[in-house]
Amino acid sequence: MRNFKYSWEEYQKLPISKKKKLLIRNSELSYLIFAQQFERKVLEKLFTLADKIRFLSKSKEGADKLQTLLSHKRATLFFSQPSTRTFKSFYNACHILGIKTTELRDGASSSQKKGESPEDTILTFASYTDLIIMRNNEEWLAEKASWLLNKKNRVVKVINAGSGKDQHPTQALLDAYTLHQAFSKAKSGKKTIVIAGDLKRGRAARSLIYILKNFKDVKLLLISPEPLKIENDVRKFLLKNYIEFIETDKFKENLKKADVIYMTRIQDEYDVSNESKEIDYSTFHLKKSYLKLIKKDAVIMHPLPRRDEVDIEIDDDERAWYWKQERNGMWARASLIAYMFGIENDIMKINF
Amino acid sequence: MRNFKYSWEEYQKLPISKKKKLLIRNSELSYLIFAQQFERKVLEKLFTLADKIRFLSKSKEGADKLQTLLSHKRATLFFSQPSTRTFKSFYNACHILGIKTTELRDGASSSQKKGESPEDTILTFASYTDLIIMRNNEEWLAEKASWLLNKKNRVVKVINAGSGKDQHPTQALLDAYTLHQAFSKAKSGKKTIVIAGDLKRGRAARSLIYILKNFKDVKLLLISPEPLKIENDVRKFLLKNYIEFIETDKFKENLKKADVIYMTRIQDEYDVSNESKEIDYSTFHLKKSYLKLIKKDAVIMHPLPRRDEVDIEIDDDERAWYWKQERNGMWARASLIAYMFGIENDIMKINF
Amino acid sequence: MRNFKYSWEEYQKLPISKKKKLLIRNSELSYLIFAQQFERKVLEKLFTLADKIRFLSKSKEGADKLQTLLSHKRATLFFSQPSTRTFKSFYNACHILGIKTTELRDGASSSQKKGESPEDTILTFASYTDLIIMRNNEEWLAEKASWLLNKKNRVVKVINAGSGKDQHPTQALLDAYTLHQAFSKAKSGKKTIVIAGDLKRGRAARSLIYILKNFKDVKLLLISPEPLKIENDVRKFLLKNYIEFIETDKFKENLKKADVIYMTRIQDEYDVSNESKEIDYSTFHLKKSYLKLIKKDAVIMHPLPRRDEVDIEIDDDERAWYWKQERNGMWARASLIAYMFGIENDIMKINF
Repeated sequence: MRNFKYSWEEYQKLPISKKKKLLIRNSELSYLIFAQQFERKVLEKLFTLADKIRFLSKSKEGADKLQTLLSHKRATLFFSQPSTRTFKSFYNACHILGIKTTELRDGASSSQKKGESPEDTILTFASYTDLIIMRNNEEWLAEKASWLLNKKNRVVKVINAGSGKDQHPTQALLDAYTLHQAFSKAKSGKKTIVIAGDLKRGRAARSLIYILKNFKDVKLLLISPEPLKIENDVRKFLLKNYIEFIETDKFKENLKKADVIYMTRIQDEYDVSNESKEIDYSTFHLKKSYLKLIKKDAVIMHPLPRRDEVDIEIDDDERAWYWKQERNGMWARASLIAYMFGIENDIMKINF
Repeated sequence: MRNFKYSWEEYQKLPISKKKKLLIRNSELSYLIFAQQFERKVLEKLFTLADKIRFLSKSKEGADKLQTLLSHKRATLFFSQPSTRTFKSFYNACHILGIKTTELRDGASSSQKKGESPEDTILTFASYTDLIIMRNNEEWLAEKASWLLNKKNRVVKVINAGSGKDQHPTQALLDAYTLHQAFSKAKSGKKTIVIAGDLKRGRAARSLIYILKNFKDVKLLLISPEPLKIENDVRKFLLKNYIEFIETDKFKENLKKADVIYMTRIQDEYDVSNESKEIDYSTFHLKKSYLKLIKKDAVIMHPLPRRDEVDIEIDDDERAWYWKQERNGMWARASLIAYMFGIENDIMKINF
Repeated sequence: MRNFKYSWEEYQKLPISKKKKLLIRNSELSYLIFAQQFERKVLEKLFTLADKIRFLSKSKEGADKLQTLLSHKRATLFFSQPSTRTFKSFYNACHILGIKTTELRDGASSSQKKGESPEDTILTFASYTDLIIMRNNEEWLAEKASWLLNKKNRVVKVINAGSGKDQHPTQALLDAYTLHQAFSKAKSGKKTIVIAGDLKRGRAARSLIYILKNFKDVKLLLISPEPLKIENDVRKFLLKNYIEFIETDKFKENLKKADVIYMTRIQDEYDVSNESKEIDYSTFHLKKSYLKLIKKDAVIMHPLPRRDEVDIEIDDDERAWYWKQERNGMWARASLIAYMFGIENDIMKINF
């Protein structure tokens, strides 16, 4: 018999290493809540699987075969924050694998209007579907969902698709997948990754940093306006995992060192009192004229959506990888879902 | 040739026994509008079918087979009232049977903004899909939809998924299915069913009472604050059908008598002038400390969502059946849809 | 290698004959943006195909077969304007062909809230799906989407499902399909088509006129209040294509001449300063009492939704074809999508 007795209060205090074990059930990754769950070995499997899914999807035969694998599963996408690309890429990732989807986009049409607790809402999704993919303002909600279903011994999987300004682990996954592709084609040797912009509130940047501990030979250049520097817990994570990093607010000056330039948008939706207005973010914009400063084989990434951090004319440059990165999101997410449902071998065995 | 000549005004005045016949076309239940349509014989079929669908859904083979049966059908879910669980359970019930779904959640994105009548909107759904599942504030709309399609001889089915504060027949169906399960495991003899809370405006309670006439040997204890007692038409129904019942406002005192305790939420969304504020609903809450008062083999039900009518700690008690009841909603609705499309024998014949 | 070098500014200035060629890629119609793209030869193919799809859909075997053809494709429905019937008919048309669908109904849940440009939103849909069906207030957006994807050499198709008050080419297609059915059953000879109502701002009326150049032997009676007459560019189109037409504001007096009466709603959503209030639209209503003025074999059409331009009692008259016309929308759209994905021969070959 399983024995999961932690109260929510106890659970929250557990060290991450302990939590990681509890998020696996019957040797299956049941709940993907934070980026630190991705170990190198799992990442390599996910990358190979994503490559295979993308390849299979190019032919009707392959695409049709993929859709048979999880045709008996149903997913709920519970997104109470605005989202286009994370939502759409998950939705389509489900369809690629044959999973049927239902969505709840906000509280407006929901029972929460009638006074239902978020926990009861989660249990309701678990009543009808096999997978809950959730993005919410509440930083704790995805984790609490996993705790709740774990405790109640419900066989329903949970994926955190963005929890407040905290974590966005599948963004980290697709970023890692894109970095993996970039480094596969590059010369060996230490790589310098510039991460620029709002490093304080950008959960994409935060989750990326967590996953980077799985990459050897990288060095981080964290470039941000002073008020938007990484938070202390991230700094500690970097130190603890011996990841080389430098913090600076000099953007243009450092571009020439970069093998990867990871741009981010100012996250002013998390402003408390319009503090973003006080910041000159324009010096953290990648302008077309800067292209000549950048290495010939560098790669420019961005989690998107962008405003004007990256000039639109840069899209035509071969080093602009953000649209490819976006498409990688769908493949990486399909890969993750397939892995969580234990069908990676079924997919790897498909042969034409 | 069919002959359906009733004007809407004439139709409304027909006795329910006459309407029941008109809602069946070519011996198929075409329109499920009110709970009184469920006769014992049909209920038994639906329960057996729901059991079978649930069983088949446990295996990939069974789930895949089920999805082939109505793969050529399309449904519209027209929900202009907030709903999570009824919506999601219907949506997933459709997917279980392979039905393709489209939804219209409110008037905001609809042609009603351009001045279209609800009748024309219904006809539009009938143009594109084979089944309309609808929940609306207007108590008459689902019935009018059935009248309209019947009159126009359109072969499109209609299910009432909640009409104002009037009826919620599929809630009654899933409640009956859950009671059926509870009574199957219980000793024989007369059963006392407590229905507690807002009995005036709770359409779940109302529809449950209608369907209970199909259960022998039950006795109702209707417990509510004085201003939220059952309406006179329900009282007449009980008398006419010789269902034993007592009305009282003593909740705690009566719990020990119950074989089933059916809790309901105060339906303050139907308040005219905040009258709910005047009522002390807290004495109609099932508190954890009351568990010791309740029979060992009793069953606690709730249509959900709940606020604090049922303490969350009660969830862990074996007698708490409301989450099971919720899941029953999906199976019972899948069963109903299958029955309405005449595929119950196809499902019962599936063998592994 | 393809060579598509036009900037957006250059592209907009191209003559329509040149654009029409650019909207075809590898002999496939990749982008359906304006009604003028429908030539007689293509229309005939589309009508035959629509007939076949409708026929196949009547049997489970046929419907199931159809769903296998594009089961590997995914579509985005990007509708930022209210729409019921266009949206639903496209959605179900996709499902008829097995295409998986995702929708974006407005900006509320979208990245545009975070400051993303519409162009980036379009590229995002193109990252995940094979077809974008779009309806927007911005008259230029569908065309810009086609330009953008053409320029970037992305193999993603675009259908304009209504661009501001400008174009609604698939409405024109379904209208033409309905006219084709009407004329097939009629005696030969010149046909008089009355188009009545808001001809200035009704994109349905505008698109219909564009497609009518493919019909021989038609004569148009354009009946509208003085302030809602056709725009000058439409008038020029009629003259240039030698389509006989008369403009008048006499509605009732002209009904007797009509072989087809195409009614339209006043498009007051495009009012700048409530100018519709100044217009007496009631003299452009088709009243039940007018039925006796109309030819016995005439056909009454309306793009729907209607307000009170057409009396509801007229629905029961055999000449009322607007509900049939509405259903034609789904078949015509399925036909168009099938054609754009090059599977028309696969469908025509299906035999039972």
